[in-house]
Amino acid sequence: MKRKMEPRGGILERPLSILALQGKVFGRESIKFNIKDLKFERNGLIPAIIQNYKTSEVLMLAYMNKESLRRTLKIGKTCFWSRSRKEYWIKGSTSGCYQYVKSIAYDCDMDALLVKVRQIGVACHTGNRLCFYRKIV
Amino acid sequence: MKRKMEPRGGILERPLSILALQGKVFGRESIKFNIKDLKFERNGLIPAIIQNYKTSEVLMLAYMNKESLRRTLKIGKTCFWSRSRKEYWIKGSTSGCYQYVKSIAYDCDMDALLVKVRQIGVACHTGNRLCFYRKIV
Repeated sequence: MKRKMEPRGGILERPLSILALQGKVFGRESIKFNIKDLKFERNGLIPAIIQNYKTSEVLMLAYMNKESLRRTLKIGKTCFWSRSRKEYWIKGSTSGCYQYVKSIAYDCDMDALLVKVRQIGVACHTGNRLCFYRKIV
Repeated sequence: MKRKMEPRGGILERPLSILALQGKVFGRESIKFNIKDLKFERNGLIPAIIQNYKTSEVLMLAYMNKESLRRTLKIGKTCFWSRSRKEYWIKGSTSGCYQYVKSIAYDCDMDALLVKVRQIGVACHTGNRLCFYRKIV
């Protein structure tokens, strides 16, 4: 029997459950995760590094607040807080270049996130595959 | 003739030249880079994503100001501004776990850096290989 192929691009994947917020054990860590434990900056934001889960390329850095993290977990696509436009921003909602979340990790200080995604199209609004396309050295 | 092997760990590599600050062409970009063009936050800091240049693992997120970026470029090892201790901090200066800089890129908005490094030992002060060792999902 021919296996049904998943269509490429713009597809809706199974959303991550909000229950994920209740904590998941990773490695030997047994600490329960609570979104309130994350250290958001005074402006209520936490930086989120976005990495392509397949190629491991770092695509961009954006910012989340508690609500955009909740939305990200609910819809399974990255949702940020736009500091310039001061609004929630589902990445790809205008361009179609969605980022489907594969995993989210937080760091030792609990003040940064690493989000691994399946990137549809390109990550950068300039049309580049990733935002870090210019080098100093 | 036997090739002289580079000793492992704690070695000094050729420092990156401060001249790098005068700009380097990458891909089709021909814009000259000037450190002053980077957008530092109001507190004078810019987030720097640290990535293992070999494994592509994202190791940590730290912050640089203009001077710590200059020092990083001068010594060829990452130098950050510690927000908690309010001092310059050459990563590895106490632990020996230096990060030798292989490349530094800046993003489309010029407000984030991606630093690819050769990591000596582990990146995290907890003893973990990287700081993002705990998962939400």
